[in-house]
Amino acid sequence: MKINQAFFRTIWPVVEGGAVEIIDQTQLPHRLHIVRIENVEAMVHAIKHMQVRGAPLIGAAAAYGMALGIADGALDGDVERTGEVLLQSRPTAVNLRWAVQRMQRVLLALPEEERAVAAWREAAVICDEDVALNQAIGQHGLSMLRALASARGRGSAAQPLQILTHCNAGWLATVDWGTALAPIYAAHEAGLAVHVWVDETRPRNQGAALTAWELAQHGVPHTIISDNAGGHLMQHGKVDCVIVGADRVTASGDVCNKIGTYLKALAAHDNAVPFYAAVPSPTIDWSMQDGRREIPIEERDADEVHYMQGVTADGAVQRLRITPPGSAAANPAFDVTPARLVTGIITERGIASPAALHALFHTSD
Amino acid sequence: MKINQAFFRTIWPVVEGGAVEIIDQTQLPHRLHIVRIENVEAMVHAIKHMQVRGAPLIGAAAAYGMALGIADGALDGDVERTGEVLLQSRPTAVNLRWAVQRMQRVLLALPEEERAVAAWREAAVICDEDVALNQAIGQHGLSMLRALASARGRGSAAQPLQILTHCNAGWLATVDWGTALAPIYAAHEAGLAVHVWVDETRPRNQGAALTAWELAQHGVPHTIISDNAGGHLMQHGKVDCVIVGADRVTASGDVCNKIGTYLKALAAHDNAVPFYAAVPSPTIDWSMQDGRREIPIEERDADEVHYMQGVTADGAVQRLRITPPGSAAANPAFDVTPARLVTGIITERGIASPAALHALFHTSD
Repeated sequence: MKINQAFFRTIWPVVEGGAVEIIDQTQLPHRLHIVRIENVEAMVHAIKHMQVRGAPLIGAAAAYGMALGIADGALDGDVERTGEVLLQSRPTAVNLRWAVQRMQRVLLALPEEERAVAAWREAAVICDEDVALNQAIGQHGLSMLRALASARGRGSAAQPLQILTHCNAGWLATVDWGTALAPIYAAHEAGLAVHVWVDETRPRNQGAALTAWELAQHGVPHTIISDNAGGHLMQHGKVDCVIVGADRVTASGDVCNKIGTYLKALAAHDNAVPFYAAVPSPTIDWSMQDGRREIPIEERDADEVHYMQGVTADGAVQRLRITPPGSAAANPAFDVTPARLVTGIITERGIASPAALHALFHTSD
Repeated sequence: MKINQAFFRTIWPVVEGGAVEIIDQTQLPHRLHIVRIENVEAMVHAIKHMQVRGAPLIGAAAAYGMALGIADGALDGDVERTGEVLLQSRPTAVNLRWAVQRMQRVLLALPEEERAVAAWREAAVICDEDVALNQAIGQHGLSMLRALASARGRGSAAQPLQILTHCNAGWLATVDWGTALAPIYAAHEAGLAVHVWVDETRPRNQGAALTAWELAQHGVPHTIISDNAGGHLMQHGKVDCVIVGADRVTASGDVCNKIGTYLKALAAHDNAVPFYAAVPSPTIDWSMQDGRREIPIEERDADEVHYMQGVTADGAVQRLRITPPGSAAANPAFDVTPARLVTGIITERGIASPAALHALFHTSD
């Protein structure tokens, strides 16, 4: 989508080959900093330190990580080892595993000498597929938003449709378009007026730092709120629907997403506000049923709670400690929203209730 | 309670008269800064800018504000005007109104020449009453915590009772002991081991800045979490009960408290975790039934969302902008938790379910 009027993707190969470029998302919204990634270790670092983040983009980054990792040697052992190194960077991300396994399957089926070129090609295909999936999600979501706007008499500039989102499942979390924000961009492009309530999303502030930034850059009306405010807004009729992304959706429709999503789903349910998760199908883990019991939740560094990054009045990016020195912090990164709180899963095939999700993908069409 | 081994209150008259001292809570947890307040305008400033905050402390501060305001003239008009000036500083705080009206009633019943002295005396009585109320809340809450610990096999150092709290309803929010934290301090003093999950409480971070600081100073085990994390902890059996304070409780038991409380109450209800609000009876507004419809919610400055205060590595207190320049923010300061989500209201008279609250105070004893 647009940054300062120009169209960007979040990751792209450098034309002369041998490297990939990304937008360093840890510097947003304060600096637009492009980073060149030249080997698999640098890609692991970028994934682990969330210079790239968001399930689909992590998948794309892992695919390019495979290409970088076998550039100087593409024996079966190299393909295996590169995959293992990448898998350890973010244990919760099912797209990471999916992309690595797909790359390994494609590469191991080829003669060694064809693998290096094929890896770059396959990574590019994965990126283009992600864009196509997200555009399809956007169109299905747009149909839902049009129906909702019509039912509630919203969608005009004076009465925009009010959508709440948590964390960043925008184009920055994907290769382009985003998942949760794809329907919002699609609505904006189609002239259906929307306004987005952007949850700050502590502790890493992906909402205030990334979602607000990309909506502002693209010109979509929005307002940042603290993570505490969404329930109150829903109680007072100020939210027409919630759309979030997900790091993993189980076969039963449980939604594992950024910590705090569950609280918003509870509030949506309590106020009869429809709650949607938008995901491309690689994010659905058909092997899991009970998300709360089965999904391992990443516990991240407590310093993410203790410190906050921002800019000073003279524009310098700085980090402050915001907690007392004698206090510990805990930092679970995700939670699981049970399917009973989920109105629908928006996918590239259409929108399904949790109960209908399996049939959407497993009935012959 | 204790700061660095010494006992403090949050507000006290200066012995030679004519002034009051407070702890400037906007500087915590980074600096312990005592501020001298010498006139009613300074007290209005302190209340408005949250140098003093928390419903009971605001009441005590308003009482001393009345004493300061009539020090140089105690005609009926002075008593009325001083009250009006104080009432405008924080519209949501029912204790503010209660304290101002009590002071006005006492003062207007006296001859003019006795009012100045009587005002200081009555303000001190209000403070001592607050301490006594909170101690009683602490003892009633302790009985509840003992029963809960016994039922769950918790309360030992190895298996402390796990309590989640939101915002700061500790001794810093009152004259001493606190409301929500009074049962926790009482348990700690009685040797019942507790561990407190402290919600950060964006946007002003009263949890991470004040609750964590006062628990650390007093030696109560605790862990800071983002406001997003509590639901996940409850889903995984890591919270035995929730105790919060309140700015206002309606006659029906609706709880108006810091924004985000409603989300935690929803999660507690969804996971069968008991949810308590601890309040002294002046916080109960018997004239209101439906909190969501009737309680006006203060909308505070958006800059509280845009900026974050903390300390740099070299100890300087600084403010950073954490949001993009092109994004607006909204900042509702409170929400209303409906009585159906509230297990009990802990008061100085005992603990009552919302349905039994009226009888607790209005049945002859």
